Amino acid sequence: MSAQPRELSHPTRDEIRLESVLHALSDPTRLHIARTIDQFGAAVTCSDIEVEVTKSTSTHHYRVLREAGVIRQTYQGTAKLNGLRRDDLDTRFPGLMTAILGVEDGE
Amino acid sequence: MSAQPRELSHPTRDEIRLESVLHALSDPTRLHIARTIDQFGAAVTCSDIEVEVTKSTSTHHYRVLREAGVIRQTYQGTAKLNGLRRDDLDTRFPGLMTAILGVEDGE
Repeated sequence: MSAQPRELSHPTRDEIRLESVLHALSDPTRLHIARTIDQFGAAVTCSDIEVEVTKSTSTHHYRVLREAGVIRQTYQGTAKLNGLRRDDLDTRFPGLMTAILGVEDGE
Repeated sequence: MSAQPRELSHPTRDEIRLESVLHALSDPTRLHIARTIDQFGAAVTCSDIEVEVTKSTSTHHYRVLREAGVIRQTYQGTAKLNGLRRDDLDTRFPGLMTAILGVEDGE
């Protein structure tokens, strides 16, 4: 008997709020995470993305991104995969992610 | 002899940081202020814009917008005028303000 897969809560597409997305991406570490996932073009584990913060701070940042609707976190076995909700975001806020993610780091 | 005009500090165009702009606009009241100024299409006084917060909170919000480079605040006599730095923002982050300001309130 396999264990019940854990499911993390996510806002539906219609529940995603602009203010929450802007807040989530207003932090340099979270912006870096979102950009890196976007560049991978696929769901990645947290360890695929280098961040200069503690593990617990990193976990917090991923949760903020998930709760804002920017990323989708799913379990694959014991690994947590992180994918950008690009389709949902592009539908809700056309042009927003292109404008935000297209800007070079440090600009 | 006229009094020296007071000047408020603003970031230069190149000093405007994406994270600061996103943070400034991640608050519903500040987003409302920016949208309203954009709709006026000209610099407006704070009293032209209805906000449901106290005067001191309102002043704080305008300061955050100014320090992030979203608005320019200038004195005209004793009145403080607020203008959106649309040209600067569009140059620095193409498409960003269109994407953010184009989204309807409450979406």
